[in-house]
This record gives sequence, structure tokens and C-alpha cells, in this order.
Amino acid sequence: MKKQPPFKKVLVANRGEIALRIIRACREMGVQTVAIYSTADRESLHVRMADEAVCVGPPETNLSYRNIPNIISAAEITQSEAIHPGYGFLSENAHFAEICQSAGVVFIGPSPESISLMGDKARAKSLMRETRVPVVPGSQGAISSEEEAITLSREIGYPLIIKASAGGGGRGMRIVHQEGDFDNALHAAQTEAFQAFGSKEVYIEKYFQNPRHVEIQILADTEGNVYALGERDCSIQRRHQKLVEESPSPVLSPKLRQEMSEAAVRAARAANYVNAGTVEFLVDDRRNFFFIEMNTRIQVEHPVTETLFQYDLVKAQIRIAAGLPVEPPGKSAGHAIECRINAEDPWTFAPSPGHLERFLLPGGPGVRVDTAFFEGATIPPQYDSLIAKLIVNGRTREEALDRMARALAEFEIKGIRTTIPFHIALMQDEAFRKGTYSTGFVEHFLARRPRERSDE
Amino acid sequence: MKKQPPFKKVLVANRGEIALRIIRACREMGVQTVAIYSTADRESLHVRMADEAVCVGPPETNLSYRNIPNIISAAEITQSEAIHPGYGFLSENAHFAEICQSAGVVFIGPSPESISLMGDKARAKSLMRETRVPVVPGSQGAISSEEEAITLSREIGYPLIIKASAGGGGRGMRIVHQEGDFDNALHAAQTEAFQAFGSKEVYIEKYFQNPRHVEIQILADTEGNVYALGERDCSIQRRHQKLVEESPSPVLSPKLRQEMSEAAVRAARAANYVNAGTVEFLVDDRRNFFFIEMNTRIQVEHPVTETLFQYDLVKAQIRIAAGLPVEPPGKSAGHAIECRINAEDPWTFAPSPGHLERFLLPGGPGVRVDTAFFEGATIPPQYDSLIAKLIVNGRTREEALDRMARALAEFEIKGIRTTIPFHIALMQDEAFRKGTYSTGFVEHFLARRPRERSDE
Repeated sequence: MKKQPPFKKVLVANRGEIALRIIRACREMGVQTVAIYSTADRESLHVRMADEAVCVGPPETNLSYRNIPNIISAAEITQSEAIHPGYGFLSENAHFAEICQSAGVVFIGPSPESISLMGDKARAKSLMRETRVPVVPGSQGAISSEEEAITLSREIGYPLIIKASAGGGGRGMRIVHQEGDFDNALHAAQTEAFQAFGSKEVYIEKYFQNPRHVEIQILADTEGNVYALGERDCSIQRRHQKLVEESPSPVLSPKLRQEMSEAAVRAARAANYVNAGTVEFLVDDRRNFFFIEMNTRIQVEHPVTETLFQYDLVKAQIRIAAGLPVEPPGKSAGHAIECRINAEDPWTFAPSPGHLERFLLPGGPGVRVDTAFFEGATIPPQYDSLIAKLIVNGRTREEALDRMARALAEFEIKGIRTTIPFHIALMQDEAFRKGTYSTGFVEHFLARRPRERSDE
Repeated sequence: MKKQPPFKKVLVANRGEIALRIIRACREMGVQTVAIYSTADRESLHVRMADEAVCVGPPETNLSYRNIPNIISAAEITQSEAIHPGYGFLSENAHFAEICQSAGVVFIGPSPESISLMGDKARAKSLMRETRVPVVPGSQGAISSEEEAITLSREIGYPLIIKASAGGGGRGMRIVHQEGDFDNALHAAQTEAFQAFGSKEVYIEKYFQNPRHVEIQILADTEGNVYALGERDCSIQRRHQKLVEESPSPVLSPKLRQEMSEAAVRAARAANYVNAGTVEFLVDDRRNFFFIEMNTRIQVEHPVTETLFQYDLVKAQIRIAAGLPVEPPGKSAGHAIECRINAEDPWTFAPSPGHLERFLLPGGPGVRVDTAFFEGATIPPQYDSLIAKLIVNGRTREEALDRMARALAEFEIKGIRTTIPFHIALMQDEAFRKGTYSTGFVEHFLARRPRERSDE
């Protein structure tokens, strides 16, 4: 009767809700778990829920959750067969994936080569071009001279954006609205890139004012199956931080979904990609889509897809890493939304860590909560401010929005400030409900909130 | 943008998790809610979550939750347009439904006539016979003479069961294994029936040793649509109390499901049934099915069906009561199970009310919790012992069982005893996992548990 688990024991190289998420998947598969924790996380739920737990260092992430030697040692001491990196921390670190390999521990994720390839934005883009996946118009890799850059800029047209090849997080990045500003912007970006990443290589891209951010979930196993599990619309962002994700995207036609899914599958195949991954696209106001990048890990918003397809992506990751095939996803049904509940002021987004005097979760039909917190717990100031992911589904987008509003109102948290009031206001917002939003939406939404709030 | 809610205000004539369930449905529809409560429930979550709340009497249910004049007054005072009775209490009281009508308040449920008809087991059975819905072989209504009874008994064959026409709960009920015992059993049943229900009328039925208990969910609107939303297998019972429900039933073939669904729809149409209802059947070991009764209300286990069909049954009830049509259910997907978590000793089932020192809910993928309790709350001794319904779904039965085991293990309750250990043992039980259980299963399961437990 007892089935064979894919691994005997997995070390979870993360904390918070994603560590719990992985432990839950392992439990359901009969896989034992090892938690790692920093001294700030001794009392955390992921430590209590795992079968074993190893302290890997002090609160600073470089000394604990990103401390490769300590984590590899923990895996060896506990005889873990595999490591799941979650998201953030070491999840997109090709070097770590390589070290796992040489230590004889399975890295639950793609190969170091795929991680490296997709981590290099210029290489990734040129591979996409070869694979007929539309990319944002721009330079073929890093620009080699100022003259070339200016010629190219005229071809692309303004506005355009200059980005560091090795970059991320807005550093080494400049938006240019007219040719007269190009020179200065280029030099500024190069200098910043060098300071931040040790390389002054930059590339140029067309800049979209208010695009949609839509991503396709991919699952690829070692038997050559590559599945696309629909999209997630992540356009509700503030300073490149996603706040709300939903699927289906209110703007995708079945034809566009099909095209984007096929492009994402081509991208994964071109990169010899194995395991779960996400191909991120911009969609412009004429419904053209352009590859941005591929995230070579499980994403925060993966539950949106899990809910729609009734498909456990983390279990699939583990199966794939063990060399097992995964099932085709089948058809999705209904509509799903996720709100990221952060320990932050709902309007200024200033962090608000502290003690949870009250923590009453919403429940009932169509509600899923992923959280590592509980009543009486303390949110440490050292880590990200995500305290819970609230995911709801409904038969229609309207039902899902109404259900989200209901669940948010039920969520009772005392002792800290949270972004729940922001999300409640958003769910009631007419423009949001119409679905015609872009990545610029939140800024405008916040700008018009204070006036409305004073009217209430 | 604002949609028209089906009612302006609904009074919820219940307590506990089902009161919350109804309030949640109303909130999602933009309907205001009025809670009623007994003095024992002042601090209850249903009181806090409703828009208004009215105390209707002391803890004794006849003086509060079954107190018709006080509840009607509460509806009138608060100008409620409709009353949702939930399950239990007044939900199958035709007289109450009638009084609502004459007070000009919509009763969210079927007509008083349908409730009466289905409440009279003999009338219900004879209607089913007319409608070609298989009924358990037995007397056509109450038996009129001892001679007739004996002749009929020979036709049906032994074992058989004698039941009070007005009965329920095992009173006025006798199982007879051979003809020599028939006379005595008949007289005993008649005497008991008279004492319990004021009528000595009894009827005779074939007795099935270890049948499955499988029910079909029905939804019928005022436009003549009658939908069947699959089955729920409720064979895991102890003393006629359901403990676990799942769908699909492990023993139903698509053909049998189709036949039972069609029979349930015929039954509903024959009774001019409107609103949600459940047609209960016995399924014998040769996969024959027989009508037992129809429950004319929402059931405790309705979330199993909601999860599989992604269909909100309580919202559908409210829409139907407002004269609105409901959507066809579409196809179901995956497998769903519900465990009823009771404040009881897990092996003796002795009640264990008290203070919840710790109450940590399970979460993550495929998990739904319906509860009216929270950390710090007290479970009053006056009412039923249900403290939470844990519902999970998976792509397959195996995944659902593994997920349920995982979620049960996560559920942390301190301060009282609960039936969680019983459910955990059940989820790991080989016979249960094979799906070949009947209504006699739990008795045998409990009988062999102590030995196994001492081995652990």
C-alpha cells in the first residue's frame, strides 16, 4: 500500500510561507523534511513543522539563508537527498546549484546552465530571438559603441530604456524620452552599472509607458514534456513589487493566450529547461507581447495557477527533480486572484514588523491562505514583509473579486499595520474591476486615494 | 457598476459555522445580514461578523434558535426580507416556513408543502414509487394488519426492519432476522412509536447489512431548471452520525452516477421541489440503489460538492429564493473529502467542550476550513460538538487523502479533546484507502484500533 516517495528527505533552504509550502508538499508525498533557520527564526512555524531543523547562522541572510557552506553542511549532516531553494535567497544562484551537484545533493530546480543562461538578460534575449519568441525591440546584447547606440535608438524610437546587462532592481537603469538626453543617460547608466555589478555593459530597449505584465507558468520534466499552465497577470505592482496577481488576465484573448503559451514553451525548450519556471512578458496596448525574462524558480504567485488547474506545482517540482514524469495539466476552470498581505502601512508601504496580538484567518468557500504566522507570533524586522498570501477563486472574475473583498474584510490582524486596507480599496475600485489596468495603475490609484478616503 | 443584490437584508436563523457560511455568501452578494443568538452565544463569531445581531432567548434551543415567535419578531424589527434557516433547528420545519410566508418574509428553502411531503417518509416513498425512483422493498406506506405484514415480510425476505412512520433517530425501529421474531418486534416497535411520536403507525422495509450511503445534491430554481451536482459518499458514520464525506464515491461507475442523478432529478420534480436539496440513497453490494429520504435543506457536507464543482450552493439558495435562475453546474473535477472535527474524545466520542487555548488552522493548497471558532474562544456545552469542517481537494482520491492527512496533522488545537486523531488514523487505514467501506465500517475500525494503537 505504501507508495515510494520521490526522495527520502529534502532540505528546505528557505523560511516563511514558502518553506511551509514546500514542507506541506513533502508531507503529502511521504518525504521527510529538514528546515534551516537563522537565530531570528528559532520560534518560526517552518522550524516546528519540519521533521528536523538546523540553525545555519545569524539573522543576516548572507550568513544564514544565503550561506552556501552552512547549508550544504546541513544537508550532509542530515543526509538530505535534495534541496528545495524556494524563491529569493539561493533559488536563482547557478553557483549554488552547481555546488549541490558536486556535493551529490539534488537541486530541486533547473540545471546550473539554464539558470546562468536566463540570468544573463542579453544572452537570454538573443536565444529568444533565435527561437522566434518576440523580444522587446532593442540592441542585440550589450552595445559596443556610442555611435551604434545612437543609430539603434533612432530605429527603435523613443521613449527607450538603458539597462545594465548584469542588472536588476532598477540599478544601472535610465529611461530616455528624446535623443538630446541620450548621451548623458548612457554614461550615467554605465557608471551605475559598474558600481553595482562590476561591469559597465548596458543594453537598450524600447520603453513601454503602461504595459501589462503577464507571465506564463511552465513545467518541464526530464522526459521532454513541456507544459504551459496558463498566465498570471501581475500588472498590479508598486515600484516593481507585485501586489496582486490574477488569472485569467482580463486582457488575453484565447488566441493571444495560445500564442504566448506556445512562445513560453519554445523558450523553455530552447533553454533545455527542466523543472518549473515562469516566462515573463510585456503586453502593450495593441496586444503585442514581448519576452522580458524567465524566472528559473517557483514564484510567490504560483498558488493562482495551482488553484485554477487543481495542480500542485511544488510536488511537480520535486517529482521532476527525482527524474519522474509529471501529468499534463488539463483544463483550468474559473478565476483566481492572490493578494499579498504585507506587514506595511497600507498607503505609504512603510514596514510595520511587530507582535501579532490577533491573527484571525478568513475561511469558507474558495479561500486559500498561505502564511507562516499565527496569533502570538512576532514578525522579525530582518526579512521581507510578506505575512500572508490570500488566494481566492470563483466561477467568474466578478465572483472572485467579491469573494476576495469578503475574505479581506474577515482577515483580522492586530498589533501591526498591514496592506489589507489597500487591497480592500482596490477590490472596490471601479477601474480595477473593469480590468483595464496596466503597470502604472497603482501609482494613479494611490494618488487619487487620499481624496476619496477623506470623503468616506 | 454596483449590482443589484437578490435581497437587501437576510436574517440568519442559526449559529456556528453554518451561520458564518451564510453570512459569507450574503457578503459576497452585497446582502446585509442579521444574526440571531442565544445568551450563550453572545461572544460568537457569527454575532460579530453579521451587520446586526438580535438576542432571541436563553441557551435552550426551544427558547432561542427554535423559538419561532422571537425569530419572526427579530426579522420584523430588523426589516429582514428573508430568513435562511441553515441546517438543523428550524430548517425542516414546514410550520416555520409557513409562518415566514404569512409574515411576508421569504423562507430560503423549499415550499412548506415540499418540506411536509418529504418529512412524511411513507408519503415520500409512495411518491418515489410513482416516479420510478427505486425505493427499498417494503410495505406501501403504513401496514394495516398483522396478517398483511407477515405476508409482505415473506415477499421481501429477511433480514427486514420495522420503522415508525413519523419516526427518526432509531426510536420505534426494530431489525428482524427471522420470521419467528416478527410478532414480538412488531408490537415492540408500535408501542415505542406511540410513546415517541403519538402514533403507532409503522412500516416494513428490507434491511441491508452493510450498505453504502450515497446522496445526490440537487438544485432547482423557479424557472424549472433542476440540476444534479454529483454525489457524496457518507458511509463513514458512527451511530448514524456522519463523520467523513467524499466525492466522487469510490464505488460509483459513471453509469450508476448518471442513473442516480436522473432518479434524484425525477424525485425533485415529482415533489415540485424548489431550492437546494439532497436525495439520499442506499447502495447495496450489487450496486443497486434505493431511495431513503430527501433532506430539504443545505447539508453539513455541502462544501464537498462546492469544491468539486466550484459552485457556491448557499449563494444559489439565496438567488433561487429571490426568484432568480441559477447557472448549470458544469463539470466537476478532482476529488474532495470533508472531515467533521468534533469537540469529542477521538475514540469514545464523549463530548469535550471547553476553552480553546490554541487553535491553529491548516492552510496551503487544496484546503478549506469552515469554523466559527478561534483561539481564545470557548465551546459551549449546550450545542452540537462540531467545531470545524476540514475540506480538501486533490486531482485524485489518493492526493486528496494524502492532503487530508497532512492538513489534519497541521491542525493544532489545545484545551479540549477533538476527533482529529480518529481522522488521522482513518486516513492511514488501508481498508479505508481502498475505498471498499460501508456504513458498518467505523464500528469495525474502532474495534480493531485499540490493539493497533498499543502497538505504535
